[in-house]
Amino acid sequence: MNTHLECFPCLMQQAVDAILQTVVDAETQTDILHESLDVLRRTDPRESPPMMAQKIQRILRSRLGVQDPYRKIKDNSNEFALKLYHKLKRKTLASNDPFGTAVRFAIAANIIDYGPKRRLSDEAMIETIEQAQNAPLDAKALQKFRDKIETAKSILYLTDNAGEIVFDRLFIEQLPTQKVTLAVRGAPAINDATIADARAAGLTEIVRVIDNGSDVPGTSLEECSTDFQRLFNTADMIIAKGQGNLETLYGIPKPIFFLLIVKCPLIARELKCNIGDMIVRCPT
Amino acid sequence: MNTHLECFPCLMQQAVDAILQTVVDAETQTDILHESLDVLRRTDPRESPPMMAQKIQRILRSRLGVQDPYRKIKDNSNEFALKLYHKLKRKTLASNDPFGTAVRFAIAANIIDYGPKRRLSDEAMIETIEQAQNAPLDAKALQKFRDKIETAKSILYLTDNAGEIVFDRLFIEQLPTQKVTLAVRGAPAINDATIADARAAGLTEIVRVIDNGSDVPGTSLEECSTDFQRLFNTADMIIAKGQGNLETLYGIPKPIFFLLIVKCPLIARELKCNIGDMIVRCPT
Repeated sequence: MNTHLECFPCLMQQAVDAILQTVVDAETQTDILHESLDVLRRTDPRESPPMMAQKIQRILRSRLGVQDPYRKIKDNSNEFALKLYHKLKRKTLASNDPFGTAVRFAIAANIIDYGPKRRLSDEAMIETIEQAQNAPLDAKALQKFRDKIETAKSILYLTDNAGEIVFDRLFIEQLPTQKVTLAVRGAPAINDATIADARAAGLTEIVRVIDNGSDVPGTSLEECSTDFQRLFNTADMIIAKGQGNLETLYGIPKPIFFLLIVKCPLIARELKCNIGDMIVRCPT
Repeated sequence: MNTHLECFPCLMQQAVDAILQTVVDAETQTDILHESLDVLRRTDPRESPPMMAQKIQRILRSRLGVQDPYRKIKDNSNEFALKLYHKLKRKTLASNDPFGTAVRFAIAANIIDYGPKRRLSDEAMIETIEQAQNAPLDAKALQKFRDKIETAKSILYLTDNAGEIVFDRLFIEQLPTQKVTLAVRGAPAINDATIADARAAGLTEIVRVIDNGSDVPGTSLEECSTDFQRLFNTADMIIAKGQGNLETLYGIPKPIFFLLIVKCPLIARELKCNIGDMIVRCPT
């Protein structure tokens, strides 16, 4: 997806949130703000919003001299999610349809996001995730999703945020795990999950985990490692979590199933749905 | 008030809203976006947010070659407000406290604003304004306001938006009108009221109306005409509507009564109140 006029205030908000969350010194704050404005000024609108975000995050890391400014925030998200995990695991196993329940928890957990909107309170997040158990999902798309999981020989699962990845595990436990490869970001990108988060979530113990070699908060294929690209090109099925993956992969003619909560009016318009909707969508 | 880090996404949103509302051609949209980013890049944070908005609005007008790109929107706001006027006038006169009722309607009408947030639906605006009749207001501040109106020999009333100005009239009709001078913006500034709007609201028939000689969506004194400055300096009391006037006049040691709905977290923090609160405040 291209960067639209409407993306600019949002990217600016993301930059300011990042600065306020990670930078204390006022002069450094202004410097990073100015460099972020320069990035936006030079933007090629054919690039996707996560590519802009990548550049702003690189400025942040380089100015701070810190490899992973969101490490603490990501650790907190994982801890928060792990506390909920066992309760939701019991709910999943006790439900009539563990697959349908777990996929709803995994989609709802996409609410744990510091990108397009500010952090929700823990209570609001818990409520969103727990209430998702009975949330409506496109039945036809969900059936297509189940069928494809059954017939696919290889499934590539692209994660989104830290914290959320714990609920991905809950869902992945309902999948034929021997067919699944999980891919995380190759380097810190906002609060997106990296290999450390996959480990924290216990995912490295149940599926093969790789990183995509890139620090884009999405999946820009040309930025990913050749190993990841090969895996992407040969997978029978791809499961892509979150808006960043959608913004970077939408339109690619592969059997990609996008799972997300819609948080942006442009994406809502593109997907013909409403903000806040839980989505399972395979455009091909 | 200074421009804070948090103001930048909001100013960017304001610029994008302005572009989308008034510019059709994609190339011109991008050009104005780029020039707006340049303005933000060169920002002196000691300037107030309305001074930034002024510069962005000037780019818009000059690029479009249109003197008042919001004229149609302002006309619609006035028409909308005039339709409500008679109903609210009856409510005001039938209430136990016409002054208290009218000031609430005038403050609530500050919701008619295209600056910091997008346009509400007509229904939502009508609901906000009508429900304001019984909204809580700081009783002590309101009493101080009444007392000052009684004792002041001259009152300078600074308006904010078109549409809203019709409800200012409703309130001004409860004031000793011979003491009141109404000041509007000196030139188009977003959807702020100018002399044309004062006329449309019928205010030119009941009070003396002047313009402040400036195109800032607020009251930056150094940008205003000397006539306005003289009036400002000699008035016994100033009534300042809306956030733009607050952002530009807050801290000036004059008996300024700010009337507004709080729409911004920074202002809420400064005034120690919540977003959405209706405010009567005289800091001196």
